[in-house]
Amino acid sequence: MNNPQKKYDIVIIGGGPAGLTAGIYAARSRQSTLLIEKGAIGGQIINAAMVENYPGYTDGISGIDLTGAMHKQATKFGMETLYAEVTGITISGDLKIVRTSGGDFAAAAVILAGGSERQKLGVSGEAAFTGRGVSYCATCDGAFFRDKEVAVVGGGNAAITEAIELTRFASRVTVIHRRNELRATKIVQEKAFADPKIKFLLETVVEEILGNNSVDRIKIRDLKSGQVSLLKLSGVFVNVGSQPATGYLKDLVKLDNNGAIIVDERLETSVPGIFAAGDIRSGSIRQVISAAGDGAMAAVNAGKYISG
Amino acid sequence: MNNPQKKYDIVIIGGGPAGLTAGIYAARSRQSTLLIEKGAIGGQIINAAMVENYPGYTDGISGIDLTGAMHKQATKFGMETLYAEVTGITISGDLKIVRTSGGDFAAAAVILAGGSERQKLGVSGEAAFTGRGVSYCATCDGAFFRDKEVAVVGGGNAAITEAIELTRFASRVTVIHRRNELRATKIVQEKAFADPKIKFLLETVVEEILGNNSVDRIKIRDLKSGQVSLLKLSGVFVNVGSQPATGYLKDLVKLDNNGAIIVDERLETSVPGIFAAGDIRSGSIRQVISAAGDGAMAAVNAGKYISG
Repeated sequence: MNNPQKKYDIVIIGGGPAGLTAGIYAARSRQSTLLIEKGAIGGQIINAAMVENYPGYTDGISGIDLTGAMHKQATKFGMETLYAEVTGITISGDLKIVRTSGGDFAAAAVILAGGSERQKLGVSGEAAFTGRGVSYCATCDGAFFRDKEVAVVGGGNAAITEAIELTRFASRVTVIHRRNELRATKIVQEKAFADPKIKFLLETVVEEILGNNSVDRIKIRDLKSGQVSLLKLSGVFVNVGSQPATGYLKDLVKLDNNGAIIVDERLETSVPGIFAAGDIRSGSIRQVISAAGDGAMAAVNAGKYISG
Repeated sequence: MNNPQKKYDIVIIGGGPAGLTAGIYAARSRQSTLLIEKGAIGGQIINAAMVENYPGYTDGISGIDLTGAMHKQATKFGMETLYAEVTGITISGDLKIVRTSGGDFAAAAVILAGGSERQKLGVSGEAAFTGRGVSYCATCDGAFFRDKEVAVVGGGNAAITEAIELTRFASRVTVIHRRNELRATKIVQEKAFADPKIKFLLETVVEEILGNNSVDRIKIRDLKSGQVSLLKLSGVFVNVGSQPATGYLKDLVKLDNNGAIIVDERLETSVPGIFAAGDIRSGSIRQVISAAGDGAMAAVNAGKYISG
């Protein structure tokens, strides 16, 4: 075990809206604060050209501008940032030792804010058209598809509920699912089946997403006949699961069946002094504003943990 | 019983950050949305000349500008606003009937976001100097009192934890409490007693708050001797309890011992289809960003309740 290089009051893991807001709160309350990010500051939202629903920005703001402002704000209050990968956390008496590719750090309290990753389809065109027709969040992007045709890929509760929500905007919603029946609960299925705007393509997979500046069609394969066809549409909502970034945490804190961190109403995990905020925690709605709200709550309660 | 005037998907009660954000989310997802506010849009935060910790506003923003922008944003997405007082909510089958001084309204789902009110001392100067030396929130305003002398009025856990937090900023923190012992738990008391920056004036009450542009002294009375004296300081943090605005709700939803609404992790109350967000709910940290995060979560889950 290396000797920790430096001790902080609060170490935050993850530089998306949850971690950045935790940093604003922790640093502003004069606690020594280190934020550790393995990639780019901003999290998933940096791919969003326009965030319309972050309260206070009446005309919207890009994800990169919004999280850039948050990072500047936290830094102004004294938060330090380290670009490194966290490999593990161990408990040493009252301290938490955070091991990273950039050295080890000791903390009185830790805030886990590493987010989650939406499962990808892994087909050609998916990455290129993300934010230009390919979306992983109807609540975020549904409003951009008024009177347009879209597909939802997936058959679980989240996917079918998303399809129902999208009927408020889209002129047609095609649900594409690889199995011959949906996994969503009966009541949700019945509601979707009864909706004239929703069509179903079961035992069907997406093979390619095509377009010019934005998505204009997808290539789909009927798994029973093997037949390939093209479907014209403007949007593809991929909803085939998500993976909270908790791989290195599974022996430390309690996780739910999806791998998300279980927290109490104060956002404390099963380990005292370790808190979780944003998409990495169970019950998240995957929105910038709620991740930010979580970050504030985790930081305030981490501060109380240290003072208490 | 009057016939409800109009039916909405979602009725939101309260026009602070929680209610406004719920409105942004509900209206943007094309649900018919009515927000009911009995006073001014904005909630408690409209008294804050400078909000430094709302993520995204690097240089801060006034409470009135921030909530004004939120209201404009929700209105842009189609939210309607009614200025009226809610007198009660009754359940009628799947619908909730919201009774107000401006008529009755039916809703598929209701979001309670009426906030809470901090208990006041009720002394001369308190109202006049609120935001100019008198504060009800150390997390919000502590940073404005670097190297200054402040008092905390109150003896409970929240008050004493606040006094400890304020030592990160203030040069001296005087705890003023009317009883001869603190109500805070032993461990918090011991930590406060051990802090050289914290002084205690027990069996003492504040009789008047004085100053010119901002607070510069308070008049205090020793309850045992009856002696009145002046204490020079720059800030008075009043922490003598708070009252969630749940008077008209006590026979409808489950409340905790403080009168705050008990919610689950999805912010649903004990009544299906009725959600609570912000300071009115149990576990709130009384911050704009967390209230806004709550509002988004309540609206998303209310939408799922309606679609489900």
